[in-house]
Amino acid sequence: MQEQLWKSIVLVRDKSPLVQSITNYVVMNSTANALLAVGASPIMAHAHEEMKDMVSIVGALVINMGTLDDYWVKSMHLAIAQANALHIPWVLDPVGAGATPYRNEVLEGLLQLRPTIIRGNASEILALASKHTTPTKGVDSTHRSTEAVDAALTLNQHFGSVVCISGATDIIVNKDSMVKLSNGHPMMARVTGMGCTATALTGAFVAVHPGDPMKATVAAMALMGVAGELAVRRSTGPGSLQVNFLDSLYTIRETEFAERLKVSA
Amino acid sequence: MQEQLWKSIVLVRDKSPLVQSITNYVVMNSTANALLAVGASPIMAHAHEEMKDMVSIVGALVINMGTLDDYWVKSMHLAIAQANALHIPWVLDPVGAGATPYRNEVLEGLLQLRPTIIRGNASEILALASKHTTPTKGVDSTHRSTEAVDAALTLNQHFGSVVCISGATDIIVNKDSMVKLSNGHPMMARVTGMGCTATALTGAFVAVHPGDPMKATVAAMALMGVAGELAVRRSTGPGSLQVNFLDSLYTIRETEFAERLKVSA
Amino acid sequence: MQEQLWKSIVLVRDKSPLVQSITNYVVMNSTANALLAVGASPIMAHAHEEMKDMVSIVGALVINMGTLDDYWVKSMHLAIAQANALHIPWVLDPVGAGATPYRNEVLEGLLQLRPTIIRGNASEILALASKHTTPTKGVDSTHRSTEAVDAALTLNQHFGSVVCISGATDIIVNKDSMVKLSNGHPMMARVTGMGCTATALTGAFVAVHPGDPMKATVAAMALMGVAGELAVRRSTGPGSLQVNFLDSLYTIRETEFAERLKVSA
Repeated sequence: MQEQLWKSIVLVRDKSPLVQSITNYVVMNSTANALLAVGASPIMAHAHEEMKDMVSIVGALVINMGTLDDYWVKSMHLAIAQANALHIPWVLDPVGAGATPYRNEVLEGLLQLRPTIIRGNASEILALASKHTTPTKGVDSTHRSTEAVDAALTLNQHFGSVVCISGATDIIVNKDSMVKLSNGHPMMARVTGMGCTATALTGAFVAVHPGDPMKATVAAMALMGVAGELAVRRSTGPGSLQVNFLDSLYTIRETEFAERLKVSA
Repeated sequence: MQEQLWKSIVLVRDKSPLVQSITNYVVMNSTANALLAVGASPIMAHAHEEMKDMVSIVGALVINMGTLDDYWVKSMHLAIAQANALHIPWVLDPVGAGATPYRNEVLEGLLQLRPTIIRGNASEILALASKHTTPTKGVDSTHRSTEAVDAALTLNQHFGSVVCISGATDIIVNKDSMVKLSNGHPMMARVTGMGCTATALTGAFVAVHPGDPMKATVAAMALMGVAGELAVRRSTGPGSLQVNFLDSLYTIRETEFAERLKVSA
Repeated sequence: MQEQLWKSIVLVRDKSPLVQSITNYVVMNSTANALLAVGASPIMAHAHEEMKDMVSIVGALVINMGTLDDYWVKSMHLAIAQANALHIPWVLDPVGAGATPYRNEVLEGLLQLRPTIIRGNASEILALASKHTTPTKGVDSTHRSTEAVDAALTLNQHFGSVVCISGATDIIVNKDSMVKLSNGHPMMARVTGMGCTATALTGAFVAVHPGDPMKATVAAMALMGVAGELAVRRSTGPGSLQVNFLDSLYTIRETEFAERLKVSA
C-alpha cells in the first residue's frame, strides 16, 4: 500500500493541482503554505460574485467552518453548488461542530450537499452525526473512537462521504473499507490549524484522484502523520514544529515515508 | 512573588482554559499559537448568531480592535454582554487608540462595558484616557511613562479595570497597587502582534484567576517578557524570534523564569 | 546604482514610514512582519468609517486584491480617493488578475484611479493590460516576458504607473526607462505571499521616495531578491525560508547586498 500512497504524493507534485479553499482566517497562511509545500497551488477567494467562476477552474474545493459568518456561509453554498454541478470533489472540515446551535444548523445544510470527504476529530464527527443517529446515543455520552467510527459510518451511509476521524490514530471510513494510520505526534496538537492543514492537503490529493476519494484521504493523512513525525524530531517546541513541518512536506523522500508509515486496512 | 507567578503558569498548563478571541486578522494565527503554546485552548469566532453560545463555554474573552469594522464591533458587543452577564472576565486591547475618530468612538463604547483588564502601549493608554482626564492634559503633549501611569489610574478609577501599560518597562496598575516588570527585548517590537499576544495570554491567565485580574496580568506579562528574552538569545532576527518565542512559551522551566524575572511592586 | 539602492534601504530603516495596507487575509501576518523587518511601520485597517483618517497619516498605501469582496473594494476606493487627494503614493497588487470577470471589473475600476506603481507577475500584468491593447493580442496567446513588457508599457502609457513584472527576472518599466533584476530563487515561489510581500515593501520604499516611484520599486525588488537568496542558503524548505527571509531583511549588510545584486538598466 505504501507504494500506492507514495505515487499519490508524487502525482500531486507533478500535477500541481489548483485548490480553492473557503477556510478560516486563523489558518489561511499556514494552509496555503502547506499546499505550496506539497506542490499544489492554493486559491483563497470568497466574493459571491466570483465563486462560480473560481470553482470552475480548480481541481478541488475545501470548505472549512472555523470562522464562519453569514457572508461566508453563502460563499460556501455558491462554491459547492458549482463544484457539484461540475463533479469537482469537495472536502468539508466541520471545525467546532457541536459548539453552538448556529454552527450545527449551518453544518446540517452543508451535509445535505453531500461532501465528497469529511475530515474532523472524534468530537466533531460525533456532533455531525448526532442528528442522524438513533436518539439513545448522544454526543455527550462518550467520545471513544469506536463510537466515532459508528458516527462516521452513519455519515457515510446518509451522505456518501468518505469520513476521516483524525486523532492519535486516524481512521478513514468508506462504505466497504476502513483504514487506520498511527503516525503523528502529540506536539502537533499544539500548533494551530494542523487539522485544517490535513483537510487542505486532502483537497490537493482528491484533486489528482477525483474518482477515488478514499485513496486521496489515506494518502493525505499518511503524509501529514509521517511529515509531522519527521518535523518533531528537529523541533524544540510548537513554533519550530510549524516551520519544520512545512520543510518536511517539501523534502520528504520515499525511503523516509516507507520506513515510518504505520498503516492497517 | 516569582513563585506565585510560576504557579499561575503551571495552572494554565494544567487547566487548559478555553479563551474566545475577537481579534484582528493580522495576529489570529500567531496569537492562537501562543495560546496553544502556554497550554490554553483558543477559539476564534465572530458570527453574531453564535456569540452568546460561544462565550458561554469559555473561561475568558479577548477583545482586540486591530482590524475592526461595524460587523466585528457588533460581535464584540454581543460577546461582552454575555461575558458580563455570566461574570466571565474579558480583556480589551485598544489597538491604534487615538489614530482615528471612529476608533475612539468604538473604544469609548467598549470602555463603558467595563473591561476586566485593559492592555495597551503608552500612546494607546493615553489616548483611551484622554476623554476622561482634565482638558489641560492632551494626548499629544508628551508620552512619558509617568503620564501613562496617570492615564492608567484614571481608567482604573472610571471603569474599574486593571490596566497594563506595556513597553520597555511594563507597568500594571490597579486601584491600590502597581507592579513594574523590566523583562523583554527591543527586537520583540519588530515582530507583528507581540502586544496582541500579550493580551491573548492575559486572557488565558485571567481565565484561571477570574477573581484576581491583577495577578493574572502580572503573570502573563512576566511570562511574555522572560520567554521573549530567552527566545532572542537563539534568534538572528524577527523571523526566528517569532518561532523561538513560541518554543520558549512551551519549554520554559521554573529556574529560567526565576533567574531572569525582574519585578518590583 | 547599487549605492543608491542601499541608501534607500537605509532611508527606510531611518525614517520608519507608516504604510497602510488593504491586503488579503492570507498574507497579513507575513507582510506586516516583512514591513517591520525592513524598519517600516505597518497599519492594516479597512473600516469605511476610518479610511479617510487613516490614509491621512501614512506615507504610502498598498492595495492588494487577493481576498477581495464588495466591502473591501469599497474600502480600497475610499482609501485611494484620499491618497490621491493628498498626493500620497499607492501601490496596486492585481492578485489573480484574469481569473474571474468580477476580479477584472474591479481591477479596471482601480486602474482608472491611476496607481503610482503596479506590481504583478507576467500573467497578471498581461491580464491587466488586455483590455487596453489591440484586440489581436490576447491574454491567452502566450506569456513570454517580452509580451509582458509590452503590456507593462501599455499600462504605463494609459495610467502613468511604474509597472513591475516580477519573475525569475524582475522587469521594472517606466515611460523612459527599464531596469532588470536577476536575483531571487525558485524556492521563494513555494512560500505563500512572496509577491504580496514585494508589493508591501514597495509601499515602504515609495513612502520614503514619494517623488521617485521608479527608484523605490527597483530598491524594493532588489532587496527582495538579494534577501531571498541569502535566506535560501540557510533554509531546508519553504517553512524555514519564510522565517529566514524575515531575518535577512532585518540583518542584511551593504557588502552582502552589493556582492549579490544583479541589476541592469
